[in-house]
Amino acid sequence: MAAKKKGGAKQGTGRSAEASKPRPAQRGEAERSLKPARGAAAQQATRHATDVQARNRKLDAVTVSAIEESASGVHEKILKKGKPDLAFPIRSLQNVSYSQQRGYFEIGRQKKTRTLTVNTVKSFAQTLRMMGLSKQLVRTNDFATKRDAYYQSKNWEEARFDEQAESDAVMDDIEALFSVRGVSREQLRFIPDEHGGAVAGNLIVLDPDRESGAVERIDCTRFGSGAYSIPSTVEHLSFETDAKFILAIETGGVFQRLQSHKFWQTANCILVSMAGVPTRATRRFIRKLSDECKLPVFAFVDCDPYGISNIYRTLKVGSGNAAHLSQFFCVPQARFLGVTPADIREYRLPTHPLLDVDIKRARDALKNDPFFKTHKPWQKAMNELLEMGVRAEQQALAKWGLNYVIDEYLPRKLANPAQFLP
Amino acid sequence: MAAKKKGGAKQGTGRSAEASKPRPAQRGEAERSLKPARGAAAQQATRHATDVQARNRKLDAVTVSAIEESASGVHEKILKKGKPDLAFPIRSLQNVSYSQQRGYFEIGRQKKTRTLTVNTVKSFAQTLRMMGLSKQLVRTNDFATKRDAYYQSKNWEEARFDEQAESDAVMDDIEALFSVRGVSREQLRFIPDEHGGAVAGNLIVLDPDRESGAVERIDCTRFGSGAYSIPSTVEHLSFETDAKFILAIETGGVFQRLQSHKFWQTANCILVSMAGVPTRATRRFIRKLSDECKLPVFAFVDCDPYGISNIYRTLKVGSGNAAHLSQFFCVPQARFLGVTPADIREYRLPTHPLLDVDIKRARDALKNDPFFKTHKPWQKAMNELLEMGVRAEQQALAKWGLNYVIDEYLPRKLANPAQFLP
Repeated sequence: MAAKKKGGAKQGTGRSAEASKPRPAQRGEAERSLKPARGAAAQQATRHATDVQARNRKLDAVTVSAIEESASGVHEKILKKGKPDLAFPIRSLQNVSYSQQRGYFEIGRQKKTRTLTVNTVKSFAQTLRMMGLSKQLVRTNDFATKRDAYYQSKNWEEARFDEQAESDAVMDDIEALFSVRGVSREQLRFIPDEHGGAVAGNLIVLDPDRESGAVERIDCTRFGSGAYSIPSTVEHLSFETDAKFILAIETGGVFQRLQSHKFWQTANCILVSMAGVPTRATRRFIRKLSDECKLPVFAFVDCDPYGISNIYRTLKVGSGNAAHLSQFFCVPQARFLGVTPADIREYRLPTHPLLDVDIKRARDALKNDPFFKTHKPWQKAMNELLEMGVRAEQQALAKWGLNYVIDEYLPRKLANPAQFLP
Repeated sequence: MAAKKKGGAKQGTGRSAEASKPRPAQRGEAERSLKPARGAAAQQATRHATDVQARNRKLDAVTVSAIEESASGVHEKILKKGKPDLAFPIRSLQNVSYSQQRGYFEIGRQKKTRTLTVNTVKSFAQTLRMMGLSKQLVRTNDFATKRDAYYQSKNWEEARFDEQAESDAVMDDIEALFSVRGVSREQLRFIPDEHGGAVAGNLIVLDPDRESGAVERIDCTRFGSGAYSIPSTVEHLSFETDAKFILAIETGGVFQRLQSHKFWQTANCILVSMAGVPTRATRRFIRKLSDECKLPVFAFVDCDPYGISNIYRTLKVGSGNAAHLSQFFCVPQARFLGVTPADIREYRLPTHPLLDVDIKRARDALKNDPFFKTHKPWQKAMNELLEMGVRAEQQALAKWGLNYVIDEYLPRKLANPAQFLP
């Protein structure tokens, strides 16, 4: 199909009207191996496409009505000559709660109210325009990053933003506002500027075309030494897999080793490269995949306060200043495979001394972080690390051979998932 | 096939012995759409696999003999009770030359000699062990990142490295030593820790399995909203495409927009997301793809000194402290589509003032960088930017509509590639 043209002209056509339009033949489809699925698989794909469209239409309707309701409230108040206001949840660690049962950081009930006055007229207008942008994006089945939204505002005349920090804050507020009603930022069509991580393994990703709805079947066993790169938004994806677990890996180096040696085949799993603190798209992808396919998630990161309290904690329960996103983005079912402080001793790993910043981070986590305050085994592990005064990288296992991680470490660990840290 | 087991046991079997072993059936292959290519395509794939294996065997033989020659020189000198030495090219901007004809930064003839004495015995031994590691990796068809190599050395007893910076420097020296003989770091089986960028568009990547040689055909039109993630090493890949050009994009946000709206289909091109300064794998991928398929490369980055003198300059001609890699990694055929200083005026883009660091970077480039000193149009453009005192991001085009970049900017630019900056 043609590339999507400017939004306005297609209002309301998006997914639904073009749903049954077949995907035109493309270069390469003459090749037998590249033909679209037929027979049973084709029927399944069509069914799936229909399901996804129905679900998306429903989500879009919920989103638009949530936006319209907020806007109507403001409008009616104005008609009654009152001072309209909007109440946004406060986004900070002070307004966050954590319960083991829920499994993620939840935003609390504290709110800040933005009332329309002479002083707030600009930010109030900006908030409404940003909500209007979201509605327009839903209608045209398009999306915007924070940066896109900032530059879009340059055409909003007096309501334009002078700094991206301002428009980012307004977008975050709107996300928080609607998150309370269960509407995610992806439903608002706001997407992260960053890409997702890389994926390889026993997984087929089903990705319906944004215009025709035709489903692309992406087989993550078939990327050779490469990998599947997670898109910025993953709401529309679904999955087929008989893998046993998801292995979320901190470094590109270890991911490449496991991928090149087809560890996903030996262990029947799905490998995800987080490349440091996982992006929102990566976290959401892991969460959706784990939820929908009932797969356990094991994290394999460096043994240092950063790997534990930033990478793993963020993956599992979310982060303090974006707790309104946790319900969608965190992976509460994640467990910590390693590298653990006990591994450093057991495998006699080469270490580096903890830096001041590491020590500070670990102490902060023990003192202030609701996640670590809840989990005794983590307090023990973190204190152990502080006592040892060292950290170890996951690649330190290479001391025993480049493929020791594949041949010894991971198989031993995976034989006892009950021993993983929470 | 089974995951590769520890190196030693399989010496010399790697690619050649298992070349004709068929790839065992995997989950999903029962699905018609996922079957391996048959008939003409299968024959072509087999031919390709054979070609690739032959080429790789040849490269491996060259690599091993280069290593053995260096090592024999040292050995013979010792037998004659002489002081053996190794002469490494000096890696710094002072030992770099640039000619428009060659198209990339070249390492000069200055060398530093490491002679075996009582004082240098440790670093000399480390250098030889690192060369030995490379030879072992070639023999076992495996690879190591810098970090892997550092940790491997922990088992080298007295020759172990205390800091990764030391082992990195030794690896760089060895790469430089052999680059003079046309042996790339990938041939030495040293690979970057970082992943490559994301790719989407009219391209099929052919990726032979590292053990069986069976070729995976990766169709980059078939990833839905996702993309192909470039592996850390790309030497073994080849390509099929009828695309007209490669568009190398700075930001993930713009890449996702062009990918989601299938700009690659409208414009018949291949999109590559660089995500900032492109990694080595990304640069090598673009270079190989461009060379082998005779495709022009157009860079689309922010209009600021960083986008121009770091991202674009590194993509095109390489970087000063790694000039020994330029011959393999730079993309001399790249041209600069935009955003240009002239675009800022013509498209009335929203701008930010240049920061001190921007101004310093631009002045440095004009004064010291052989690339900018060679190209008058760049001197003019850079001076224009300094006079205007502002910079603009590629997403600034969103001022005129989120898809203005697709509907207006890129088509207009692509109608006149002769006007691109060199």
